[in-house]
Amino acid sequence: MTQSRTEPNYRGQEIHNPHLDPNKPYALAGLLVVDLTHVLSGPTCTRMLADAGARVIHVERKGSGDDTRSMGPYLADGSSEYFRIANAGKESISLDFKDPDDFALLKRMIAKADVVVENFRPGVMARLGLDPEELVKEYPRLIVASISGFGQYGPMSKQAAYDTIVQALSGIMDATGSQDGPATRVGTSISDIVAGIMGYAAITTALVARERTGQGTTVDVAMLDTTFSLMAQDLMTALGPHQIPHRIGNRHPYMYPFDTFACQDQPLAICCGNDHLWSLLCNALGHPEWIDQANFKTNDLREANWQAVKDALEGVLKSDLAENWRDKLEAAGVPVGIVLNVDQTRRLPQIIERGMVKALPDGREVIGTPMKFSTWNSWGAKVDSPQLDAQGKAIRQEFS
Amino acid sequence: MTQSRTEPNYRGQEIHNPHLDPNKPYALAGLLVVDLTHVLSGPTCTRMLADAGARVIHVERKGSGDDTRSMGPYLADGSSEYFRIANAGKESISLDFKDPDDFALLKRMIAKADVVVENFRPGVMARLGLDPEELVKEYPRLIVASISGFGQYGPMSKQAAYDTIVQALSGIMDATGSQDGPATRVGTSISDIVAGIMGYAAITTALVARERTGQGTTVDVAMLDTTFSLMAQDLMTALGPHQIPHRIGNRHPYMYPFDTFACQDQPLAICCGNDHLWSLLCNALGHPEWIDQANFKTNDLREANWQAVKDALEGVLKSDLAENWRDKLEAAGVPVGIVLNVDQTRRLPQIIERGMVKALPDGREVIGTPMKFSTWNSWGAKVDSPQLDAQGKAIRQEFS
Repeated sequence: MTQSRTEPNYRGQEIHNPHLDPNKPYALAGLLVVDLTHVLSGPTCTRMLADAGARVIHVERKGSGDDTRSMGPYLADGSSEYFRIANAGKESISLDFKDPDDFALLKRMIAKADVVVENFRPGVMARLGLDPEELVKEYPRLIVASISGFGQYGPMSKQAAYDTIVQALSGIMDATGSQDGPATRVGTSISDIVAGIMGYAAITTALVARERTGQGTTVDVAMLDTTFSLMAQDLMTALGPHQIPHRIGNRHPYMYPFDTFACQDQPLAICCGNDHLWSLLCNALGHPEWIDQANFKTNDLREANWQAVKDALEGVLKSDLAENWRDKLEAAGVPVGIVLNVDQTRRLPQIIERGMVKALPDGREVIGTPMKFSTWNSWGAKVDSPQLDAQGKAIRQEFS
Repeated sequence: MTQSRTEPNYRGQEIHNPHLDPNKPYALAGLLVVDLTHVLSGPTCTRMLADAGARVIHVERKGSGDDTRSMGPYLADGSSEYFRIANAGKESISLDFKDPDDFALLKRMIAKADVVVENFRPGVMARLGLDPEELVKEYPRLIVASISGFGQYGPMSKQAAYDTIVQALSGIMDATGSQDGPATRVGTSISDIVAGIMGYAAITTALVARERTGQGTTVDVAMLDTTFSLMAQDLMTALGPHQIPHRIGNRHPYMYPFDTFACQDQPLAICCGNDHLWSLLCNALGHPEWIDQANFKTNDLREANWQAVKDALEGVLKSDLAENWRDKLEAAGVPVGIVLNVDQTRRLPQIIERGMVKALPDGREVIGTPMKFSTWNSWGAKVDSPQLDAQGKAIRQEFS
């Protein structure tokens, strides 16, 4: 890994930009979440709850705390950036669930909570004396949300689930990569993270119902269900016409050119879904003769001869930098986008203005919230991830 | 594409499985959604609203309706499977927004609605006389949600956004693929679909706040913000230590073996994050001598020599089918998963028992809902996607 250049200044966006006004009230203000999660899927869900203004108390294992506290990358002070990214905005208390006093404290916290979130393997909560169904019986307004690999029931429910295994089983890995190449893992823990988002969606759904009826519920969200539900296009093929979909690299299945193309430096995505955009592209590349060329002139012909189209386009595009082509094609009205790495993405003025990277008061930077409201706070949580047991003493007093 | 084998029977799951009891009340029962969306991101959001029990009226353009009605794949009766997958559970009315009577009807529907959802390009709603901020001023309890490529403000907000372009700009494409290979598009329209899910999450968040305060709001969710927020691991590298992340294929950045491996037929994902699991794997493969081999014996050594580990494992794994290895390794306690295509995934008993494919009364099959509740309906919408204007006459009467 190479060191990147000048750092953008993420500070002060929330002061100068009325869309991000940090003094607006929070949508979930006044709600208390007891967070029994660890690693990634669960903490992603509870970080969203914190960003929306709920008070999130992250209950961590006595001693070492959340596993990610001892996972890299680490900063100079020895703290884990992994833990920070997933836990900004939360409070921390460390408890020993086997200590009767600690367990009693936990139960008092749950008694006052609106939401409990956990991502243990199914069955562990019951063994801890915290069976979700029983908790909802005991506290009928409570929402107890479980995020797991395969769900709380079914033949696979007790199996070990890691993001890579769920990506493999869900079909998303088989769908990703070039036609002749291997099945390819999505380059982020998509199954963990989207399960966290779906867990959040299910919890807020349950909160709407509780506000309207007074009734709590358990919530059961699985990484496999969620990743499977992302496979919409391939499922159109598999469920409707009962055909087996095959991966096709970066191309669109029905439109061309709708792909990535090599330039002198970086690849460029170009998306022309109709003849009009195709003609704009040909003119901008200085090849108006392609517009009506026999093998290029309709979308069906371009799709059938996509490799020839790609070769022709790249023959021209390789003469200049992606950035220059981006500017030229954009000016010509052609939909384009450079294939950026996320270090470039985080520098886009659009990302900065949207508050998608957030500088916290201690100077640390975390991911912003993609939920933007006019009435409610869209800046999200204002404090860094907590030291282990940082609020332990205060919380013990409060729930004594 | 090849024809697949015997069809699994998705019928009756909701009758035999108490978890999917279709007679349970819906979490969002009683809420009215006016759905002005088209194609994929918006319809994904409103399909989730329909699955959670809101009444969703899909307002379609007079004449041709939602663009996806004329996008493949098509069934024998000429209907679009694309439209079906994205629109099950909704009602349809077709309107001409420029016709004063139709526009007045739309305004009467909005006056009674809880939520309006749209995914036009920013600025179009205002030109139609439906500026989101103005609508919330007029109906202070209303939630008006906009899903767009780049968001409602910022320097890129007016640019054309297709899933491929947003994937390119977000960093997810650069992160996906082998170290030496090209940046790779995720093999599903992840930027569209996750923006739809995030739109749903933001709407339910706004509904919680409205139930508690009486106040509505606009909601502004962008495909770029949402996809960027999925890049958690790479952002740990880019934000914390300020390094530039690079794609590494199917491997885990810090653990090995945690990758996919070629068997005789299909690849198999194997995830051994510690020495104990490594020893179980070596024994199960009949190579106990690897456990303490000088270049394999710790995770750091295996990570440094990952190609040698991979070659050694594949040397054995290629002698048998992935399914047989899956059974053997599972029995030995090693976390594994076959790399399935989604046509295989949809046949997993786990997927069927979880109701993740749903047979509708007309026999058509659609994606189930990944939000499972004990108190609320977890089966989702019970009717197929509507014919264009199917409920038009009844809706015109109701809102006359």
